[in-house]
Amino acid sequence: MRAAVMRNGELVVDDLPDLEPGSGQVLVKTLACGICGSDLHALRHAHSMVELSAKAGAGFVMDLSRDVVMGHEFCVEVLDYGPDTQKTLGTGARACSVPMLIGAGGIDSVGYSNTAPGGYGEHMLLSEAMLLPVPDGLPTDLAALTEPMSVGYHAVEKARIEGGEVPLVIGCGPVGLAVITALRIKGLGPIIAADYSPARRALAEKMGADIIVDPAEHSPYESWQSAAEARAGETDAPPNPLTGERELPAAVYFECVGVPGVIDQMMLGAPRDTRIVVVGVCMEADRFQPFYGIVGEINMQFVLGYTPDEFEETLHMIADGKMECEALITGKVGVEEVAGAFAELGDPERHAKILVEPWRN
Amino acid sequence: MRAAVMRNGELVVDDLPDLEPGSGQVLVKTLACGICGSDLHALRHAHSMVELSAKAGAGFVMDLSRDVVMGHEFCVEVLDYGPDTQKTLGTGARACSVPMLIGAGGIDSVGYSNTAPGGYGEHMLLSEAMLLPVPDGLPTDLAALTEPMSVGYHAVEKARIEGGEVPLVIGCGPVGLAVITALRIKGLGPIIAADYSPARRALAEKMGADIIVDPAEHSPYESWQSAAEARAGETDAPPNPLTGERELPAAVYFECVGVPGVIDQMMLGAPRDTRIVVVGVCMEADRFQPFYGIVGEINMQFVLGYTPDEFEETLHMIADGKMECEALITGKVGVEEVAGAFAELGDPERHAKILVEPWRN
Repeated sequence: MRAAVMRNGELVVDDLPDLEPGSGQVLVKTLACGICGSDLHALRHAHSMVELSAKAGAGFVMDLSRDVVMGHEFCVEVLDYGPDTQKTLGTGARACSVPMLIGAGGIDSVGYSNTAPGGYGEHMLLSEAMLLPVPDGLPTDLAALTEPMSVGYHAVEKARIEGGEVPLVIGCGPVGLAVITALRIKGLGPIIAADYSPARRALAEKMGADIIVDPAEHSPYESWQSAAEARAGETDAPPNPLTGERELPAAVYFECVGVPGVIDQMMLGAPRDTRIVVVGVCMEADRFQPFYGIVGEINMQFVLGYTPDEFEETLHMIADGKMECEALITGKVGVEEVAGAFAELGDPERHAKILVEPWRN
Repeated sequence: MRAAVMRNGELVVDDLPDLEPGSGQVLVKTLACGICGSDLHALRHAHSMVELSAKAGAGFVMDLSRDVVMGHEFCVEVLDYGPDTQKTLGTGARACSVPMLIGAGGIDSVGYSNTAPGGYGEHMLLSEAMLLPVPDGLPTDLAALTEPMSVGYHAVEKARIEGGEVPLVIGCGPVGLAVITALRIKGLGPIIAADYSPARRALAEKMGADIIVDPAEHSPYESWQSAAEARAGETDAPPNPLTGERELPAAVYFECVGVPGVIDQMMLGAPRDTRIVVVGVCMEADRFQPFYGIVGEINMQFVLGYTPDEFEETLHMIADGKMECEALITGKVGVEEVAGAFAELGDPERHAKILVEPWRN
């Protein structure tokens, strides 16, 4: 099969051997697969990612001297069933799946593995037990957004929302936009969102952010403060007798950038008792002042992925029109153009989410 | 009054002007005041502490070109009342207080302020509204431990304990020992505690830790794992059908060291969904791998101090004998010996908590 392959730290296009579904597995055709920011990080920091994963006992174990086909945000078509399968979905049916492949040796991360190629190739192997049928009428492109939208949904679920919080989203790439969408569904607001890129800010507004900040012009933390004070002013609660100030709504910050320095900056900007949810995937060492966390009694929740239930709920929220995300898609490419798309995604003005359609050309 | 003064980054003994209680304030005599690890950090990193506090909008604002009398873990005797006071406690009564002084200009941190001298001097000013009478029969030395014991109690309260967690305490200085005591009161166990110092490990055992680890000999994280597996083996819960492993009890780690590098090491050692409570007060920049937090979906709760209610509860738990802490006290000094005591506290084999008795000599 034709695939864009990570080989020696670069993306090359090559013909790989055909895949053979094992016990409980399904051979599928990739209809569409989104390019994830983590894949951009992984290509750049592959050795660091593998080394850190090995140290932390995490699942992303790859032999980088061998080929890796990335891509874990996909919508597929069922081509063939392996042994020990129920064949509940007919061949030709469209499906989504969490990117995990159950094999004889355990669970593989689809797209971050030598043995479970991802969606930047024409074919993949998936586990029948994890397949979710794509609801009729849901376009394939939107179904492929289930994975990244689940990430935002999960991040908000992990934020221990009680209602009434005022959220701040730092970074409006696909992860930040997914978080904004999930916050809007939760009914939280005003949602403050910050990004240096005008195109990303426009998308944030489209996805439902209420106050959109260019950090080059205004401090997102001051914008949060003003919005929180305005909200506090609307309530009947009496001011604190000691300080004369009104109690502000709780702060929930979402780190959706994933590069060193952002966590420290957010800790410094955070009011007392802020919950910071770290959704961006930073693969480098970072530097921070624990003292900022200490004096504000800040809580930091690191998150990754989603539960299978959250993934399924997300698919249905997209299908029901409850979770609007079409605006995320800014381009589509074939296998030959994946390397170019990775480069283009470096410019936030041009793109948010590019889908790979490996059947093209 | 005679006091040990932080002046130009050193501790010197000097006679300071007498204190005059303002509106709502009380003049007190320091009966005993513990030397806190934070004071050792503060003496060493005073400029960094002030700079970070100012940036973070925290209360520890001092002019280091002027005198500061540290000391915030005290038991006092009421000497005189200022204007606008109820005089509920008679003069001569013993009292404890959270180290906060309400003045015309706002709230001062007693012991970290130019205007609210702490317990390393003969006298202090406190706010009448915050005074708690020391229960009859409770020795002054133990009453002075209310503050550090509250820190441990608060840390455990902030850990969102649901029951059944297996705790790991890294660092068995006074803060770690206070955490161990609070965990024991919560009924959690086995409590795993780690410290390089044999004397500190002996204290940890005395305070109620169940498994005591010398990190030079064994990994505390492996010790946690073994203890957690043993606990899981005692339950009737079936193993996970996918992995064949039994679900381990939840991990709650307490960082009670407060020096750079420890948080990163704990994040690396932590199993999935660990809650790390950061109780140690690190005043330097730290380095960590966010990726360790991400792959394990770790939660990090920074804590500082306690609530007034927790402080009062702690005083009563000590008085009732529910919170045993006498073993913490390893020495007592007069004002002239405070600088020497700071130096001696650098050796964990010699001391845990030294009380200053400024009325001595």
